[in-house]
Amino acid sequence: MLSVFSDEYFMQKALLEAEKALAKGEIPVGAVIVVDNQIIAKAYNLTEHLQDVTAHAEIQAITAASEYLGGKYLTNCTIYVTLEPCSMCAGALYWSRIQRVVIGASDPKRGFRTIGGILHPKTQFISGILEEECETILHSFFTSKR
Amino acid sequence: MLSVFSDEYFMQKALLEAEKALAKGEIPVGAVIVVDNQIIAKAYNLTEHLQDVTAHAEIQAITAASEYLGGKYLTNCTIYVTLEPCSMCAGALYWSRIQRVVIGASDPKRGFRTIGGILHPKTQFISGILEEECETILHSFFTSKR
Repeated sequence: MLSVFSDEYFMQKALLEAEKALAKGEIPVGAVIVVDNQIIAKAYNLTEHLQDVTAHAEIQAITAASEYLGGKYLTNCTIYVTLEPCSMCAGALYWSRIQRVVIGASDPKRGFRTIGGILHPKTQFISGILEEECETILHSFFTSKR
Repeated sequence: MLSVFSDEYFMQKALLEAEKALAKGEIPVGAVIVVDNQIIAKAYNLTEHLQDVTAHAEIQAITAASEYLGGKYLTNCTIYVTLEPCSMCAGALYWSRIQRVVIGASDPKRGFRTIGGILHPKTQFISGILEEECETILHSFFTSKR
C-alpha cells in the first residue's frame, strides 16, 4: 500500500503552487517545505508580480519555513520543488542545511547542476518525482508565450 | 584629482553597513547599490537577527533596489559589497543582470568563485577595493567569537 504521505503526494502540493503562478502569468514553479509529514511553507514564483529576481518559490518557502520554525536551519525538513533549483536557490538551500531536496523537472539550462553551486553535503537530493506533470505545466506556459 | 564618486568612496559606504552588522553581532558584510553615482539601496547581513539564511546583504539590497527602480533588472547599477558573494548571492546578481559587481575582500572558502555559480556574461567584476579594511572587520568579528 502506498503511504498517503509519499514524495508524489507532496510534489502534487508543489504543483498546486505552480498552478497559482501560472494563473498570475508567472513562470510556473511551486514549492512546499515539509517536516514530519506536515507542510509548513508553500510558495510559488512571484518574480514578475513583485519585480524582484529573488522571489523564486524556494527563497520564499525557505523564509516562510524559518519564520514558522523560529530558526534558520531546516535540518529536519524536505523541500519539494517542481523545477530544479537555480544556483541562487541551491545556495540558499545549502545555507539552510535542509535534509532533503526533491525535484520534479530537471533544468538542464539554468539548473544548479549545470550553472554551478552546491547543496550541503548532508542534503539528500532526489529528482524526477512527477517529472512529466512538472514539465507539462512549464511547457504550457512557454508555448502560450510564443 | 580623485573623483569624489570613486569605487573606494562607495565601498566605504558598504563598510559603514558592515559596521552596523557587526554592532548587531552579525557576520559583518555590507552592500550598497548605486546608479548614476546615487546610492539607491543599502543593506547588511541580518541572518541571525531574522533567523533567515536568505537575509544576506546582497539579497536585501537587490530587493530594495528593484523596489526603488520599479523593475527587476539592475542593468545600469553597480553593487559594492565588502565580501565576495556566495553562490546564492551570485545567482541573484546573475538574474538581476547588474552592470558591475565590486567587492572588497575575497572569500576563498565560501565565495562563488570557489563553490560555484556565475554572474551574468554582461556583468563586470572588480575585486580588491578597500580589501584590507573589508578583511579587518571580518577578522575582528571572528576573533571576538573565539
